[in-house]
Amino acid sequence: MASLLIKNGRVVTADSDSVCDVLIEGETIVAIGRNLPDTADQVIDAGGKLVLPGGIDPHVHLDMPFMGTFSSDTHETGTRAALHGGTTTVIDFVLQKQGHSLREALTEWQGRATGNAVGDYSFHMAVTDFNEQTKAEIAEMVGEGITSFKVFLAYKGALMIDDAQLVGLMQEVKKHGALVTVHATNGDMIDTLIAQHRAQGKMSPLYHYLSQPEVTEAEASGRFTDIANYTGVNAYIVHLTCEGALNQVREATRRNQRVFVETCIQYLLLDASLYGEDFEGAKVVMSPPLRQKKDQETLWAGINQGLVQVVGTDHCPFLWEQKQMGQHDFSKIPNGHPAIEHRMELLFSEGVSKGRISLQRYVAVTATNAAKIFGMFPRKGTISIGADADLIIIDPERQHTISAATHHMNVDYSAYEGWELTGKIETVVLRGQVAILDGQPQVEKGYGQFIKRGPTIF
Amino acid sequence: MASLLIKNGRVVTADSDSVCDVLIEGETIVAIGRNLPDTADQVIDAGGKLVLPGGIDPHVHLDMPFMGTFSSDTHETGTRAALHGGTTTVIDFVLQKQGHSLREALTEWQGRATGNAVGDYSFHMAVTDFNEQTKAEIAEMVGEGITSFKVFLAYKGALMIDDAQLVGLMQEVKKHGALVTVHATNGDMIDTLIAQHRAQGKMSPLYHYLSQPEVTEAEASGRFTDIANYTGVNAYIVHLTCEGALNQVREATRRNQRVFVETCIQYLLLDASLYGEDFEGAKVVMSPPLRQKKDQETLWAGINQGLVQVVGTDHCPFLWEQKQMGQHDFSKIPNGHPAIEHRMELLFSEGVSKGRISLQRYVAVTATNAAKIFGMFPRKGTISIGADADLIIIDPERQHTISAATHHMNVDYSAYEGWELTGKIETVVLRGQVAILDGQPQVEKGYGQFIKRGPTIF
Amino acid sequence: MASLLIKNGRVVTADSDSVCDVLIEGETIVAIGRNLPDTADQVIDAGGKLVLPGGIDPHVHLDMPFMGTFSSDTHETGTRAALHGGTTTVIDFVLQKQGHSLREALTEWQGRATGNAVGDYSFHMAVTDFNEQTKAEIAEMVGEGITSFKVFLAYKGALMIDDAQLVGLMQEVKKHGALVTVHATNGDMIDTLIAQHRAQGKMSPLYHYLSQPEVTEAEASGRFTDIANYTGVNAYIVHLTCEGALNQVREATRRNQRVFVETCIQYLLLDASLYGEDFEGAKVVMSPPLRQKKDQETLWAGINQGLVQVVGTDHCPFLWEQKQMGQHDFSKIPNGHPAIEHRMELLFSEGVSKGRISLQRYVAVTATNAAKIFGMFPRKGTISIGADADLIIIDPERQHTISAATHHMNVDYSAYEGWELTGKIETVVLRGQVAILDGQPQVEKGYGQFIKRGPTIF
Amino acid sequence: MASLLIKNGRVVTADSDSVCDVLIEGETIVAIGRNLPDTADQVIDAGGKLVLPGGIDPHVHLDMPFMGTFSSDTHETGTRAALHGGTTTVIDFVLQKQGHSLREALTEWQGRATGNAVGDYSFHMAVTDFNEQTKAEIAEMVGEGITSFKVFLAYKGALMIDDAQLVGLMQEVKKHGALVTVHATNGDMIDTLIAQHRAQGKMSPLYHYLSQPEVTEAEASGRFTDIANYTGVNAYIVHLTCEGALNQVREATRRNQRVFVETCIQYLLLDASLYGEDFEGAKVVMSPPLRQKKDQETLWAGINQGLVQVVGTDHCPFLWEQKQMGQHDFSKIPNGHPAIEHRMELLFSEGVSKGRISLQRYVAVTATNAAKIFGMFPRKGTISIGADADLIIIDPERQHTISAATHHMNVDYSAYEGWELTGKIETVVLRGQVAILDGQPQVEKGYGQFIKRGPTIF
Repeated sequence: MASLLIKNGRVVTADSDSVCDVLIEGETIVAIGRNLPDTADQVIDAGGKLVLPGGIDPHVHLDMPFMGTFSSDTHETGTRAALHGGTTTVIDFVLQKQGHSLREALTEWQGRATGNAVGDYSFHMAVTDFNEQTKAEIAEMVGEGITSFKVFLAYKGALMIDDAQLVGLMQEVKKHGALVTVHATNGDMIDTLIAQHRAQGKMSPLYHYLSQPEVTEAEASGRFTDIANYTGVNAYIVHLTCEGALNQVREATRRNQRVFVETCIQYLLLDASLYGEDFEGAKVVMSPPLRQKKDQETLWAGINQGLVQVVGTDHCPFLWEQKQMGQHDFSKIPNGHPAIEHRMELLFSEGVSKGRISLQRYVAVTATNAAKIFGMFPRKGTISIGADADLIIIDPERQHTISAATHHMNVDYSAYEGWELTGKIETVVLRGQVAILDGQPQVEKGYGQFIKRGPTIF
Repeated sequence: MASLLIKNGRVVTADSDSVCDVLIEGETIVAIGRNLPDTADQVIDAGGKLVLPGGIDPHVHLDMPFMGTFSSDTHETGTRAALHGGTTTVIDFVLQKQGHSLREALTEWQGRATGNAVGDYSFHMAVTDFNEQTKAEIAEMVGEGITSFKVFLAYKGALMIDDAQLVGLMQEVKKHGALVTVHATNGDMIDTLIAQHRAQGKMSPLYHYLSQPEVTEAEASGRFTDIANYTGVNAYIVHLTCEGALNQVREATRRNQRVFVETCIQYLLLDASLYGEDFEGAKVVMSPPLRQKKDQETLWAGINQGLVQVVGTDHCPFLWEQKQMGQHDFSKIPNGHPAIEHRMELLFSEGVSKGRISLQRYVAVTATNAAKIFGMFPRKGTISIGADADLIIIDPERQHTISAATHHMNVDYSAYEGWELTGKIETVVLRGQVAILDGQPQVEKGYGQFIKRGPTIF
Repeated sequence: MASLLIKNGRVVTADSDSVCDVLIEGETIVAIGRNLPDTADQVIDAGGKLVLPGGIDPHVHLDMPFMGTFSSDTHETGTRAALHGGTTTVIDFVLQKQGHSLREALTEWQGRATGNAVGDYSFHMAVTDFNEQTKAEIAEMVGEGITSFKVFLAYKGALMIDDAQLVGLMQEVKKHGALVTVHATNGDMIDTLIAQHRAQGKMSPLYHYLSQPEVTEAEASGRFTDIANYTGVNAYIVHLTCEGALNQVREATRRNQRVFVETCIQYLLLDASLYGEDFEGAKVVMSPPLRQKKDQETLWAGINQGLVQVVGTDHCPFLWEQKQMGQHDFSKIPNGHPAIEHRMELLFSEGVSKGRISLQRYVAVTATNAAKIFGMFPRKGTISIGADADLIIIDPERQHTISAATHHMNVDYSAYEGWELTGKIETVVLRGQVAILDGQPQVEKGYGQFIKRGPTIF
Repeated sequence: MASLLIKNGRVVTADSDSVCDVLIEGETIVAIGRNLPDTADQVIDAGGKLVLPGGIDPHVHLDMPFMGTFSSDTHETGTRAALHGGTTTVIDFVLQKQGHSLREALTEWQGRATGNAVGDYSFHMAVTDFNEQTKAEIAEMVGEGITSFKVFLAYKGALMIDDAQLVGLMQEVKKHGALVTVHATNGDMIDTLIAQHRAQGKMSPLYHYLSQPEVTEAEASGRFTDIANYTGVNAYIVHLTCEGALNQVREATRRNQRVFVETCIQYLLLDASLYGEDFEGAKVVMSPPLRQKKDQETLWAGINQGLVQVVGTDHCPFLWEQKQMGQHDFSKIPNGHPAIEHRMELLFSEGVSKGRISLQRYVAVTATNAAKIFGMFPRKGTISIGADADLIIIDPERQHTISAATHHMNVDYSAYEGWELTGKIETVVLRGQVAILDGQPQVEKGYGQFIKRGPTIF
């Protein structure tokens, strides 16, 4: 079994911080210590660098059929880009097709992912049609290691379920000790506003934003939280963006409820001033849309309050050519934002380097919390004995610049073009293999494995 | 340098969980791994056992002059009892005397603690008289490694400061990056209710409880939180007991504020039904008093919500004879509750064994969070390389019974007499020394060291 | 023109209280004063009695097709019973049939009401299908004097609209300065719980209650309030029953929103202990169901806080024989509770006589506020010059007992059977006519007129 | 007994609106009606005008010793100016001197008021020293018709009481069915900020504002509300200015508490942009200071929500010469703002004419609610039989301009200088006497009477 020694790094996890060595045998961390013997097959000197758990991005959409096209990163390109950016594991969404079974959807997604992923991955199951048949499949999916079930409260006719299905799903998922996650926006309301804007000839990206006002998210977050409280299920809100929605979760703490919250890197860093009457804003057409400065503030605060546990990406890239589908109608712009590669460095630079969050908090929200909530702990998300050797080495002082010209995602623009960051992820280890070395990929397509998941431990 | 190897235990921290070995050299953890070489001077087999960070109790009162007497545990007996119960570090309160300097008080406390403590300890400084002189001492205390400053909003004429002093103290403490902690009850209101009860001849322990209704704590918690928000200081509420007070903190999250919260083990487990017209209730006369079942529920929820970060004890023991001082007048009963020894086992049994909290959460609230908040991280509160080797070994299945007849605190009763617990702390290591081995003390008075503390990292 | 003088009564309105005379000419109050000349055609001495504005019950269902039957009071029997109980004006609900126009429904209801009503009445329009056609009818209905539009968030497939329709309706109604009212319960969630109970063979009235837990109302109230706030429409929640729902309204005040709230007399006085496994509870099967004691407290408080402006009845009687339809299945019990006759006396006795509310508040919540909110002010709801002479004379000390044997509603039981009340409404004047004199009816079927309504003035 | 007939006006009260005549005999309204006989001694034609209840300003400080000087309006000049502006009754504050009795203070105030007032007046008693002696005086004051007791939570050493006194006072006042009112700002905190600004040489009016940030009021409002809830006393917050404070009251509704709220006209119309580094801002140096636009919005909303029941003035005028006392030190500027004359017209113009509030609401917040809350109802605050004939006649369309050159208050500037208002109060009747006729005073010094008050009816 090959061994790898990472020496002299400042090893930081959510609850530790020490200069030491990490010894890996095969895929697994076997020792952490000072002056571990230098006998490993491979030795990396991390002196002056940070050694952190590999990132987990629990919210990505790879090779996903959507709005008549596919998101432009495959499981290969997407997970490779993720690795470049220090994310060693992603959780992708399987979307049930209404009228069809969960199994069919899983098979379809397995077909696209298996043998293609470079980095590790798991699946959430998006339940878009909950009925007696699919109810029976919940236990089956849990058996497959898929322990999180997503619902959409928007996209009527395609993905949205109604509250009747929501109650039923929550009850069933609770029975199996699993988790319900939600895209919490009021689809009916959004559809109405979209139709009104279109009827008025308001077709630019600005109206994408104005069709999804804060209330559409706050309302749906409150509704989801209320019903989750009634059923007692473990609940998680994906891509929460705004004060109104977070306040629903805060309010729910008063009735002794806990709801997990994920935000995404773009909601912390970008705002709605990017939407205008010209088509440039199409680059940041995503759902929910970007919000206001006051929302960014509340999200940063939420992280430090422990009420926002996860920073993901909702990575769902579309080429500029694909975005053109909506050139004359914002509602036809494929929704999505490429970020899988830059989440870790952006949050490091804007969060840690700028003093908004501690290093421990950084590790927690990029890796450990997702591992715990999504049932991959302690195998993933931390640096500990017996855990998968998923590690990143960061030069915390190194400056670099984001550009579509140099990034590895299959998309030809970046919302962060020209941003200068402090802190570069130079080396990435995945299950004991050096996957990225000084910025160069070292593993092939197919290296990534499917990760079976268990219950939440938090 | 002596070495110690703890083998085969299930090593659990706030962010890890693995069966492995821990190697200690001198006072420090130097390696964690599988199958570490068996060459240590001393080897303990922890097979089938849990190995956790030693507990930190950030709220104890040892040898404290109060109400005309002294709390009955000295730094020796108190920290020894703490060690028996798996708490390796305590933070004791130095009480400034009004009209005197902080330095004087520190010198007095050092006089009682130095050379006497068996376990490690640090000091909070309780500022009871904030003025131009003591303002200048804040920086000096931070230099001494005392980075938390407590205020009392009760006990007028002895400990209480007014809001003018509170603002000033917060501003000064913020300047030095330190922390303000608070005994948050409305002293004026309590004093009035005490006087009224006494005037009506209502003298039993029940009236201790009725003189400190929930509102007295909720109000003061809100006031402290409001003023802390204005000044921007790091803020921490000690011994929070009730829904009304926790809701103030929850409400404050809406304005993007973070306030740290400590509850104590007794508020999770005991309730106000123990107060009656006979004198038995004197055993649980403490301030704030025990509350209702609904408050216990909200505290357990608060822990899992991440809004209650610390479970301490407010250990402040008085012998039954001392409690007699208040036999005919509840207001003369020395306030305090012995718990330093049993916090860890009580919370393990009632929290972990009964499934209310995860093992990771247990470690966080008994050790890691206190270390982070109070500036002892990463030296204390976790199991990591370079950290002090403060460890406890628990047999998670072993049943045992609490009794004053067998406990090690200098007090002749227990509020938990006869309670049967699951999970026994058998062995305790403090800075590399086995301090308790199979229930027997192995270190002497004077072994405990004063721990200098730095800023909060959370 | 006939004249009527009511002498020496204690005339009380929402903002006055004086012993004086009221002179009526024709249908209208023309003078209020001391020692008005005794020359009227008819003189009633109200010495020692209270003279108050006739009650307005803005929530009744007369002769309504529902669940395969009709509510058992026609416009004749219902408004006559109302008069007996001091309610001179009612607002009945016209229910649009899905797929049909508002006009059709209005015509149908006019067919049943016109010429039949004994007391005055108006209509709300319940919009159950909002689309381009019905959108155009909103202005038309406002032109008819129907300025309040009700939506149901429950009863899917029959009455319920989705949030898309809700947004659109609100926008249109706002354009015309009218009001949206809501039956705010989550129909999807309720339907699921009903189906689950039935599938488990849980068929008694108890399960009616358990199928509509507090959350179903709190959630829908929050959703309605959120969307109303976005659109800016005047909003009103009918038959609010519980703390969870009222707290949504209270919370909304923080964003400077005002939402009008109606509760019904039964929610103030009866509670869920009436639901059990036997069929007796069918008498109080209504939607929402009765709640807990804590909810009664919050409703009384809400009245005094000014946050609950109206106490109505949701009068919807069914004969005991009709209730039998659900003998073996709670979901088939016609929903509804007879109260049109007793609201005024029940609230007087339980509210005013017991000191829970002032006389002024009593007038406000039984008459004035409804008149203002529903656009009948100052014609109705108060005692002032030029207003309709709708008056009641109460003997505030007189004891009486409620019984189905003596009441005038077309229903053969009463939830208040045997209740002893203090305060009897003896005489009722409607538009200048003595309608009830010492308990005897004096006006015929057809006397009641349709009242055209205007905008809210509040 | 002289009689007066006001003909053809549009008579509006909080619950009525009709064109009619009002007949007065002596001091009392004896008839309201259409076409009342024209036989009165005096007839005023109010055709095309509004006839409303005379205003009640429950918050004025006349001839008050403060900060080494006296407020510049005596009971004569102040109540005359009030009459000019349509305010027929004021409630002035008697200030107990610490160490002295309530009786002494009352005697002193009676000495200044009796025989001097032109308009009617009553007294609140400000309790600045609550102890066993003054406790006994509470009942005595209630006997004098003084049923509201004010506390200051600011101005330590002069007016402020601590929370111990506050609890005791509330308990005693509750026993007598009276009301506690509060100046709710945190005096300790304000004193600290003032001292800090002065120590830094920050001496301009701007620092008056910055020494009383929103939190000082929000905190004290919350504390007062909490303690009032515990004691169960009727509670009223004077001159509430900001969102933070109103949100405390809104939050308190959730525990079923009702707290009355008064704001003042200046907080609705002026904002903190008037404070700057030059001395001009001294004109609006008052406590609490003016706030932000967002606070104005929340106050207007609060009025329409029914949560702000009263709009007063806190009239406390100082001549420009007196204001100079603080030319070099904001803390020496006499605090206060002249508004007694313009409240009614300002609120009419900015509230009613601009469509922010209804006419009924206008009457309620300027007259009726204060009469009810402060125990003068139904004698004052409405137009009803037997009530004092306190009436104002407004030309709702007439434009006029505010100027210190033309106003009647004894002060030589106006914060509203040059404001153009719509709606002029032309004629004022007080207890049957025309007090102002077409802008000219008709009654003499000494006409004003002391009004004994009873309990709150609301």
